[in-house]
Amino acid sequence: MTFTLAQRAHKMNPSVLREILKVTDRPGIISFAGGLPSAHTFPVDALRQASDKVLRTQGQSALQYAASEGLPALREWVAQDLLAHQGLRVSPEQVLITTGSQQGLDLLAKVLIDAASPIVVESPTYLGALQAFAPMEPVVHSVACDEQGPVPEDLRATLAQLGQKARFMYLLPNFQNPTGRTMGEGRRQALVQVLQEGGLPLIEDNPYGDLWFDEAPPASLCSRCPEASVYLGSFSKILAPGLRLGYVVAPPSLYPKLLQAKQAADLHTPSFNQRLVAEVLQGDFLARHVPSIRELYKQQCQAMLGALAQEMNGLGVRWNRPLGGMFLWLQLPQGMDAAALLPHAVARGVAFVPGAAFFAANPGHENLRLSFTTADESQIRAGIAVLAQVIQDHLTR
Amino acid sequence: MTFTLAQRAHKMNPSVLREILKVTDRPGIISFAGGLPSAHTFPVDALRQASDKVLRTQGQSALQYAASEGLPALREWVAQDLLAHQGLRVSPEQVLITTGSQQGLDLLAKVLIDAASPIVVESPTYLGALQAFAPMEPVVHSVACDEQGPVPEDLRATLAQLGQKARFMYLLPNFQNPTGRTMGEGRRQALVQVLQEGGLPLIEDNPYGDLWFDEAPPASLCSRCPEASVYLGSFSKILAPGLRLGYVVAPPSLYPKLLQAKQAADLHTPSFNQRLVAEVLQGDFLARHVPSIRELYKQQCQAMLGALAQEMNGLGVRWNRPLGGMFLWLQLPQGMDAAALLPHAVARGVAFVPGAAFFAANPGHENLRLSFTTADESQIRAGIAVLAQVIQDHLTR
Repeated sequence: MTFTLAQRAHKMNPSVLREILKVTDRPGIISFAGGLPSAHTFPVDALRQASDKVLRTQGQSALQYAASEGLPALREWVAQDLLAHQGLRVSPEQVLITTGSQQGLDLLAKVLIDAASPIVVESPTYLGALQAFAPMEPVVHSVACDEQGPVPEDLRATLAQLGQKARFMYLLPNFQNPTGRTMGEGRRQALVQVLQEGGLPLIEDNPYGDLWFDEAPPASLCSRCPEASVYLGSFSKILAPGLRLGYVVAPPSLYPKLLQAKQAADLHTPSFNQRLVAEVLQGDFLARHVPSIRELYKQQCQAMLGALAQEMNGLGVRWNRPLGGMFLWLQLPQGMDAAALLPHAVARGVAFVPGAAFFAANPGHENLRLSFTTADESQIRAGIAVLAQVIQDHLTR
Repeated sequence: MTFTLAQRAHKMNPSVLREILKVTDRPGIISFAGGLPSAHTFPVDALRQASDKVLRTQGQSALQYAASEGLPALREWVAQDLLAHQGLRVSPEQVLITTGSQQGLDLLAKVLIDAASPIVVESPTYLGALQAFAPMEPVVHSVACDEQGPVPEDLRATLAQLGQKARFMYLLPNFQNPTGRTMGEGRRQALVQVLQEGGLPLIEDNPYGDLWFDEAPPASLCSRCPEASVYLGSFSKILAPGLRLGYVVAPPSLYPKLLQAKQAADLHTPSFNQRLVAEVLQGDFLARHVPSIRELYKQQCQAMLGALAQEMNGLGVRWNRPLGGMFLWLQLPQGMDAAALLPHAVARGVAFVPGAAFFAANPGHENLRLSFTTADESQIRAGIAVLAQVIQDHLTR
């Protein structure tokens, strides 16, 4: 009398990231490892007032079962926001509120991936997406990337080599996790053209797009091919991740199946959380709130870039200059393995995430991801100095 | 450039229930159709105070990303509560907090069901479970049931006829949805014996178990075979469904895979909601709160039973007498189709759910589900009188 696991369960694995975070979340560690927003950016007081108001004025509705599509007021807000900030014209009826945008990836995997279906991703890409897709057993094809993301010619070649049509390409155009890179306007146009030529639908994931430092990124990819694209958004980085509130925007041909999958997955996203966020968004709250997050992350990113320039001098280490978001991508000297470096760094009080986990294939062992959101500027300077010492020690061994 | 659906997407269907509820939620309708708890039972003030306290004292943690397993304090509460009220001795490490217990069904389906795997269910059974299982493409076997649930001899015969071992049996022993029926002590013993003989693991779903009228139901099935059983619980009916908070209790052999599936599905259940409920549960809150729900539902159930006895006299209608929960199961005169009756009832201002949707196979067209939670006693009396008239009209046609 024992449980027999489904085949797909063998495709599920403990998150490497999660195991690393268990070690690196020790008190006293300067962590560049987490993918967490800074808790200092959470609008705790505004949410407390909104919570009080929601429970005073609409308590019974906020605590009752609700529609699987999501709260109408929130779906309308999303549609208006996408038009204003992403150049994306959608109807509120195309918006499905999800329990974090991670759930959007899970629903899309269920609805779009058969066992052995090809899907196409960036290299590296968001680990949580690979984990959401894996149980549905796709064959994952990685496209070679440069500092702006997928190289159009390589995408064209990948599509030409596939034995069958891929189900979709998954892309994070803005301040990507893990690299922090952003696609420029030309790259977006070129990629959409290749996707259209190849008849390949697009899933665009944009959790970080509002966190730009100096200027907003170019218009979304979805706005260039709305008929065959899905857009994923999130309130996790602009309000708070602990509310688990995200959304999927899907074309009318796909929406009903995503809705049925959503209903079976958790009936609906918590009504209380949806009403709470709809309340706090009133009066253009984000227009006042989000600039303060941008400013904080920009300062901390600059502190990290400054420390890297100062401490890594002559070590053969390279890194990019993110235009927003939460992450920076670092490349160690040739032949140095970030995973082998990690225990030495942790022993000296600094944590990061080795880059290999983010590759669907051919991992870049020399890469590592640094988050600049949760450590303050002095911790960033101290932590980067330690990291440089650890690299120096490895070089001279 | 269009999306291609996965095969499993064709197994997903719009919920019949949901479509019915769209019609029946019109203002002025007396609805016995919904599966909603009474909103009058939601402890709005207690939750408002708890929310204020959580955001004042632990706001940043409540709004940050959190562990996929769930909040330690809540997992400990669940383990203690199961020992006290279900005779179930489990470690907090076996408790996985989920986004409603519906999510537990989704995770179990992913981890345990291969395409064409046999699974075994009651007849009728919870529609949401059938919807959660369907995308993983099981072959669903229904066991014949009487007024206490599955008949052990029929379960034994079903298992003997299966070409391969079934993955699990799914059972709701207490105040089942849709029938309201409860398994007695003897039935529980007999079913567990047949399951053990057949080596068939058990999924026990218990969202209504605390809603007993006069005495608590017998000890859980899981407590009789803890090594190969999964228990699903929920805060939806004893606190509020809009928080979407439930849990799965799994043996150590199964837990890690459910956790990996949970992480890929939505990272974690909202931290704010978990801390909110952990706070409101302090000081044995439920010991004061739940009796008031039991009392309300008992009164309303008695009102419905009284009205049925008075109004249905001589119509050849039969019904059961639930010992708790939210539902009552009614059988129309032979040959009368509940689905055909519904539009006539709705036209006269009363709604119910035809029973056919709850059967995996061989639907009972003469059955219908009546909820006694959301209509008050005078509405119940008026609504049952209308229903009797509609049945009478059909009989004399």
